[in-house]
This record gives sequence, structure tokens and C-alpha cells, in this order.
Amino acid sequence: MIQNTLDTSPPRLIALDWGTSSQRAWLLGDGGRILDVRRPDFGLLGTTGDDPESRTRAYEAAFDEACGDWIAAAPDLPAIACGMVGSAQGWREAGYLTTPTDLAIGAGDLTAVPHPRGVLHLVPGMRVAPAADGSVPGDVMRGEETQIIGALGLLPPTDGPLTIVLPGTHSKWARVEDHKIVSFATAMSGELYGLVMAHGILGRTATTGVRDDAAFGRGLTTGTSVPSRGLPAELFGARALVLDGLLDPASLPDYVSGVIIADEVRHLLPHYAAGHRILLCGNADLCRRYAAGLRVHGMAADIVAEEAAAQGLWRVAIDAGLLDPDASTIPEKETL
Amino acid sequence: MIQNTLDTSPPRLIALDWGTSSQRAWLLGDGGRILDVRRPDFGLLGTTGDDPESRTRAYEAAFDEACGDWIAAAPDLPAIACGMVGSAQGWREAGYLTTPTDLAIGAGDLTAVPHPRGVLHLVPGMRVAPAADGSVPGDVMRGEETQIIGALGLLPPTDGPLTIVLPGTHSKWARVEDHKIVSFATAMSGELYGLVMAHGILGRTATTGVRDDAAFGRGLTTGTSVPSRGLPAELFGARALVLDGLLDPASLPDYVSGVIIADEVRHLLPHYAAGHRILLCGNADLCRRYAAGLRVHGMAADIVAEEAAAQGLWRVAIDAGLLDPDASTIPEKETL
Repeated sequence: MIQNTLDTSPPRLIALDWGTSSQRAWLLGDGGRILDVRRPDFGLLGTTGDDPESRTRAYEAAFDEACGDWIAAAPDLPAIACGMVGSAQGWREAGYLTTPTDLAIGAGDLTAVPHPRGVLHLVPGMRVAPAADGSVPGDVMRGEETQIIGALGLLPPTDGPLTIVLPGTHSKWARVEDHKIVSFATAMSGELYGLVMAHGILGRTATTGVRDDAAFGRGLTTGTSVPSRGLPAELFGARALVLDGLLDPASLPDYVSGVIIADEVRHLLPHYAAGHRILLCGNADLCRRYAAGLRVHGMAADIVAEEAAAQGLWRVAIDAGLLDPDASTIPEKETL
Repeated sequence: MIQNTLDTSPPRLIALDWGTSSQRAWLLGDGGRILDVRRPDFGLLGTTGDDPESRTRAYEAAFDEACGDWIAAAPDLPAIACGMVGSAQGWREAGYLTTPTDLAIGAGDLTAVPHPRGVLHLVPGMRVAPAADGSVPGDVMRGEETQIIGALGLLPPTDGPLTIVLPGTHSKWARVEDHKIVSFATAMSGELYGLVMAHGILGRTATTGVRDDAAFGRGLTTGTSVPSRGLPAELFGARALVLDGLLDPASLPDYVSGVIIADEVRHLLPHYAAGHRILLCGNADLCRRYAAGLRVHGMAADIVAEEAAAQGLWRVAIDAGLLDPDASTIPEKETL
């Protein structure tokens, strides 16, 4: 069947961003072009406490449901996945590469998971090893390393030091130097925002609002004030402003967003981006907010306002030799 | 009936700490001695969206249930309450005193709420007015002002500057100078701890634990590290430690407690307690944790390991003239 479509737009790779809370499956063609995309709902697969046998069956079934038809149509197509699927709670533990790590992930770094129709290759996570003296804290990511690799591919090549920021539930700040990820940090700012608005007094103080960029800017200013009173005090300050009639409860969410992003930026910018060019990658609105937070410190940022996981998976597949660099040929069917 | 017990232990005051999530009712005798205490469950009275009429009826019924028998036994007994009952969502809005505020609250500052059996006096909250230029952030408290007044009464008299810290869901740091509360700050540290452990990834990372003072100490050290990576990054660091096998998931709650308390202390200590004697007042375990957090900065603290609301209500009642300073006589029955 592949042969029938080779002269138009042959599929080259099945690529999955298989996270805990969201999943994406792409059928990629030459040069990583997206031929098809799906958003399978794997639900809470990663949080089940099943025994290994039944967990394997569950992942196999989920994988088959997500892209079994793609495999049936092109049984030799390589498949690759990043994210939670490779965690200890996933299909198979895919390990971590320890920083500094080369941006080109090798074939030996992937974990091959056999399934009834072939093999799925899992991308390893990355970790920062903590220093014994505590001077360097440890950190971990799984899935974001692939987005970082993809985002770098979307940029004009640069040799200078770069920091990639992926804003989100667990924001990542990754320092890239000499084509290596030399270190990174995670801030659970997005999770804190979600928690205080969904379950806390700030959520009960807010009313359903419209977007308020001015309130966001006020929050940024508060969260950047010197010296800082600390995030827990500045967050309560949002409630005080509402009780004092100085902040519309409908604008509280944007104000709180500003306070939390400012706190993250003020702390991580000097550690992870001093003297670096900065690239923001992810949701367009979040990137815009972080860019505003960086401007307060006189820093400009390039924005790649899209998720770069598909590009990253394509890049890893090339570097690991799953497909030809020019993607003009399809590799032999793999055997384990 | 009062007369029958005057020579032994006459009740002098009905005092209520009527907060949103917990309530206490005391029958106080000479010198503020506690003759009886109850923990009525007023449930979500403060969060109902009832119309004013039915809200009034609901508060009257709750008050009657809590201490109607005390009033029946001594109809002339004055009654006073602090906390949410005096908020905009409470029985009657009791307003705020703006700092700097004298520790002696005057009769004119109380709000008298008539009810079928007499009058309940509501203690006002306190607020810090924000400076127009943003240099001083605003803040509010309602209920804690009474605890502060009570805690000061439990200390040997001092004329020097003092900072009272009430650790809790919304920790308060109040600067007291020249017998005035000159300013204060609130940190929602306890709320953040509760949210991340109840609803966040840290709660899902932790296992049911035993108390681990060493893990708490490690968290304090991390949260005090210079320069700071910020609370959202240090919180995620707890998960990284567990994934790296460097922290027992059963010890994660104490580690996180240390990180959050250290963050609060490092930020609020220089603003609100520089050069001040420090008094911690509240839950014994929390006071112990905050004292450890202060020791990291070379600060000692006195601890009043009890809730001081009853003492505070007694003090306010005296200062406002609701009863004689020596509490040997009972005032005339009030009329509105």
C-alpha cells in the first residue's frame, strides 16, 4: 500500500506524544510533514495500579486504537513515542538521560517495546543529577525534552547559548549550550495557578471574568516588586485587593496569573537564562504572558507558538536512525 | 440565677470566635477564666447566598443553638464575637480598622447586632491600606486581630517592638510598636500546602507517612538556599527527589512543609520582623516548625502554643466597656 502512494505523500513515521493528561498521535511524511493527527483519549492509563501483564495489555489496546489502522496500512512504518508512556507508571520504563545531554538522541538511548504488530520506540526522559553538596538541585522531565528538540529545529540555527522556556503546568527552563542541554529547572507554576483557582480562596473570591490584560500587568508588577514579599503573601494580596474594592473579582484570575508568572521569571531568569537568548515554546497565550514577564526584566524572547513535539519526535527518529535523514527510503522491518 | 452563683464563679461574658471553617463559644468568668467551652458547628453559614432576612434568621438560630442556654441562665450577660460573622458574608458587616490601630478597641468600633434575646457585639477586622504608589500592599484580617490582642495579654508586658506571627492556613505577621498594630502581612502558605498535598502532583507522589523531622529540616534548608529558585521550582524539586530515590515518598509531606515555611519566613522576616522580638502563637506543632524556620535566620521566638481568641475577646470586652475592668459587676442590660 505504501508503494501506491509513494509518489504523492508517503507516510514515514508514526509519532506519539503520550503524556499523562493529553495525548497526540501523528502520521508524519517526508521532512516531518504532518499527514494526519489524532487526539486519542487514553484516560487514566498511567495512573492504574494494574499488574504488569494487564498494564501491557491495556497499553497495547490503547496504541492499537490510536493508530492500528495506520500500521495496518503500512506495516513497516517505524513508530516512536515520548512522555509518560515511558515512565515507571507507563508501558515500559524508558529511563532518563542525565544532563549534560547531546541534543541528538542515539539509537541506544531509545527503549524498544514489542507489540503484536511491531515495535514502539520510547524516548528517554532527562534528569539533572543533584549535587551531593546540594548546590545543584535535581530535576526531571519526560516528554518536554522532545518538545525542546523539536523547538530548536524550528529556529534558524544558532551556536550561541540559548534558554528554551516551555510554559505550562510544569514549566521548563532548559539551558542549551554547544548543542547540549546542560541543565534545566521545573517550576510548577501552572499547577499552582490551577490549584488556587480551582480549590482555594482565590477561586472563591473570583467571579467569572473576561480577559483583563491590565490586571495581568498589575499582577506582573506586584510579582516583580523589590524586595519580594514572597508568592504566598502576594497571592493573598489579590484577595485583599478585591475586599478593598481595588480589583474587580472578574479580573482576579488574570492578576493572579501575572503574580505567579512574575515570581517564576524573577527566580529562574538569573539561574537559567543569564546572558542567553530566550526561546518561548508552547501555547500562544501562555507564551505571550511569559514574554511580558521577561520584558519587565528587559529581556526579549523569540516565540514558537506551537507545540513542537511532532517535530521533536521526527528529529529523534532521524538521529536514532529509525528513518533515513532525507526520509526518502523506508527502513527494513525491525526485529527484536 | 446569676446571684445564686456570684460568690463562687459567676459568668461574665459570652465570647465567640466565629470563623468560616471553625467556631468556638466560651463562657468566661472573672479575669477571663474559661468556665465552659463549646465547638458549635455552624457549617457553611457564611457561604450561603441567602437574602438578608433569611440570613439573619439563620445566624440567630445558630447563635441560639450555640449559647441560648447561657443567655437564658444569665440574660444580662454581654456577648461578643470576632471572625467571619462580621464579614460581608456574615451576620452583619462589622467593618475594618485601618492600621496603625490601637490595641485597645473602643466601644465605638464594635458593631452591635440586636437579636431576640439581646445584643451581640462584633469585633471589627483590621486592614492595611495599600499605598497609592504600590509601595505598601494592602492586607486584611478578621478574627486574627483578636487572637493578636489575646496573645499580647499572655506575655509579660513589653514596650519594645514586637512581631506576632500566627501560623496557619493564612499566616499573619503583625508588627506591634507603641501598643499599636502598625502593619501586617498575610501569607497563604498553609492553604498552598493543603492544596498541593490534597489535589496536586505532590499529593499523588507522597505515600501515607510518618512524621519525619529530618525531612522537614531538609525542606527548610532547600527553602532557605541562596539564591532562591522560587517556591514553584522548589516544590517540584520534592517530586524530583522522590523520583531520584533521594526522598522517601512517606517523608515528602514534611519536606514540603519545610520548603513552604522557609519560603514564607525568608520573605516576611526582613519586612515584618527586622529588629523585633518575635512571638509565635497558635497550634503547637506549627509554632515549633516556624520556630525552626526562624532559627535558620538566627532568630529566636517566644511561643504561645494556644489559640488566644478567648483572651482577646475578653480584652476587647474590657477595653470597649462591655464589662468592668475587674469584672466584679455586671453592666446594665443594654438597649439599642
